[in-house]
Amino acid sequence: MKNPLKTIRETKPLVHHITNWVTIYDCANITRAFGALPVMAHAPEECADMTGISSALVLNIGTLTSEIIDSMLLSAAAANEKKIPVVLDAVGVGATRFRDEMAAKILGSVRVDIIKGNYSEIAKLAGENAETKGVESTSMVMTGKEDVISDGNRTFVVKNGHELMGSIVGTGCMAASIIGSFASVNPDYCDAAKDALCYFGAAGELAAKNSAGPGSFKVNLYDEVFNLSDEKVQAMMKVEEL
Amino acid sequence: MKNPLKTIRETKPLVHHITNWVTIYDCANITRAFGALPVMAHAPEECADMTGISSALVLNIGTLTSEIIDSMLLSAAAANEKKIPVVLDAVGVGATRFRDEMAAKILGSVRVDIIKGNYSEIAKLAGENAETKGVESTSMVMTGKEDVISDGNRTFVVKNGHELMGSIVGTGCMAASIIGSFASVNPDYCDAAKDALCYFGAAGELAAKNSAGPGSFKVNLYDEVFNLSDEKVQAMMKVEEL
Amino acid sequence: MKNPLKTIRETKPLVHHITNWVTIYDCANITRAFGALPVMAHAPEECADMTGISSALVLNIGTLTSEIIDSMLLSAAAANEKKIPVVLDAVGVGATRFRDEMAAKILGSVRVDIIKGNYSEIAKLAGENAETKGVESTSMVMTGKEDVISDGNRTFVVKNGHELMGSIVGTGCMAASIIGSFASVNPDYCDAAKDALCYFGAAGELAAKNSAGPGSFKVNLYDEVFNLSDEKVQAMMKVEEL
Repeated sequence: MKNPLKTIRETKPLVHHITNWVTIYDCANITRAFGALPVMAHAPEECADMTGISSALVLNIGTLTSEIIDSMLLSAAAANEKKIPVVLDAVGVGATRFRDEMAAKILGSVRVDIIKGNYSEIAKLAGENAETKGVESTSMVMTGKEDVISDGNRTFVVKNGHELMGSIVGTGCMAASIIGSFASVNPDYCDAAKDALCYFGAAGELAAKNSAGPGSFKVNLYDEVFNLSDEKVQAMMKVEEL
Repeated sequence: MKNPLKTIRETKPLVHHITNWVTIYDCANITRAFGALPVMAHAPEECADMTGISSALVLNIGTLTSEIIDSMLLSAAAANEKKIPVVLDAVGVGATRFRDEMAAKILGSVRVDIIKGNYSEIAKLAGENAETKGVESTSMVMTGKEDVISDGNRTFVVKNGHELMGSIVGTGCMAASIIGSFASVNPDYCDAAKDALCYFGAAGELAAKNSAGPGSFKVNLYDEVFNLSDEKVQAMMKVEEL
Repeated sequence: MKNPLKTIRETKPLVHHITNWVTIYDCANITRAFGALPVMAHAPEECADMTGISSALVLNIGTLTSEIIDSMLLSAAAANEKKIPVVLDAVGVGATRFRDEMAAKILGSVRVDIIKGNYSEIAKLAGENAETKGVESTSMVMTGKEDVISDGNRTFVVKNGHELMGSIVGTGCMAASIIGSFASVNPDYCDAAKDALCYFGAAGELAAKNSAGPGSFKVNLYDEVFNLSDEKVQAMMKVEEL
């Protein structure tokens, strides 16, 4: 997509999150800094309605409970119905059986458009051979020192980013929120995820320049995201198509 | 009131919050920066007891559930009994029917002393013509580029503030916490709400001076609130009485 | 212990938290800044499994509910079984009967290795004469202007720290996370708690040097923790053994 950031800032898409209690503020705040509008709502009585007025749904199982999973299923069904992108951040899959089962339940019950995780989370999901709905059209995002994004046909490697991003809690969760924001304005979800990680990584590189540690880095990261432009990032993009 | 900030800092009122999971930390931290003592407790077994030792109650329905609403009703009843101010931040009213119903349930079951919302939230509440308890004595705070505060007799327009306050998530929720803190030491709730928004807006103006974006702005906002004085704000107040 | 920080950074212990919703992000982030790996998981279906792969368990009752207490008991039993340290931060004990009862329930049901609180919280717990499991081997940490750490045989007074630490919400909770991190690599829990408070206090002293208020102080605190070394702290330690 040519100018994803400009598009987000002009259209201000509502990005509905059902996420964890650790990084929920940063998920909201980074979505806002990119120009989208975050909304967090998990009550079963309203979550599907909230998804119904949104342009993307981001699910993050970092501090899942069975009640939260039920709300995720309600919202994801509404998102599928409305044909807006559903992002699943598979936080901690592989760490406990409950997480594995709940992730499998989501993937088997609703269509997830973009699955994100680190190497071990994605490997665990892939190894399960679980029955998944419409996985043939799912984009996969594997984050790490370099990020790999694939939809089965195209595979991108994103090399933007800085090691200080790993020094603070929540950059992984923030990445999922950004992917949701980019996917809300770009129907090519693989391209959207690739762009999201380039933009976030570029902001991280800029933020690292004047950072003395994770405290100042996080402050600078928000400032740099806020001051980002499509032109600035496009001169910095380090993407390879395999 | 002559020196509300000095009064808060000398009396250190306990401000009980039942609030949302996104901005709960900032609600607590801004209350602390103003000199009051925040406490967050939502378990039905203790919330009324916690309100019973507090000087104000702040309710925020940002991530409401039916259980949280039940706790809010228990605490608000205790606050009404103790005659301490109850602030309701009507976050997201109008977005889902559940929110509208729960806000109406609160307003119909307990006395709310100060209702706060943005234009669309307040308009929705006003348009409902819901049966409300003691609404004749309720102060209404409508936030926006300029804030309007009214108790039916007096109406103030507060013009303090800076657009960077809208660039971070949570300034609206923080405003409700500050209103609760000011109302805990000033029985004229309309005056307290007006002061609260002037003080917060003034801190925002000072913070914006050396901010490169939302990251540094938020850091500076906390520093400026901490270093505020009644004298400093009173020289900056931009209030009009209609 | 000679080089606790180096040991944490080399071994990267997983520190499982069941904590409150106000400071949960800072508990995670400070654990990360010290070099340990935080994990937060409270669902009853997985919390014991998560404790089973962790090296310490930190319990904080700041926003307790009866369901959260049930999860704490499941995790603490798993920690006792695995013989990893259990830290209890007795936030708000004395404020409501529910808190007192739940703290007593934890102490009467599982072995807590380190109990942390401020003067009034510890005094309340001590005054209850509650039946506690294995309290003869429990270390007690009483925080304040000076921190007192004792296991009944040895008593340390830690004088590191800075008053700006009290200007932000969450330093108490963060201290419990740090104690858990240090105890995960040092079987002498009294020594570990003493070290944890020295290191955190020393970082606070360094951070205060260039801080204009609580906003910049918190940023600097994370930077200073990140840049701490055993040598740096050992030259700054202010500990007295009584």
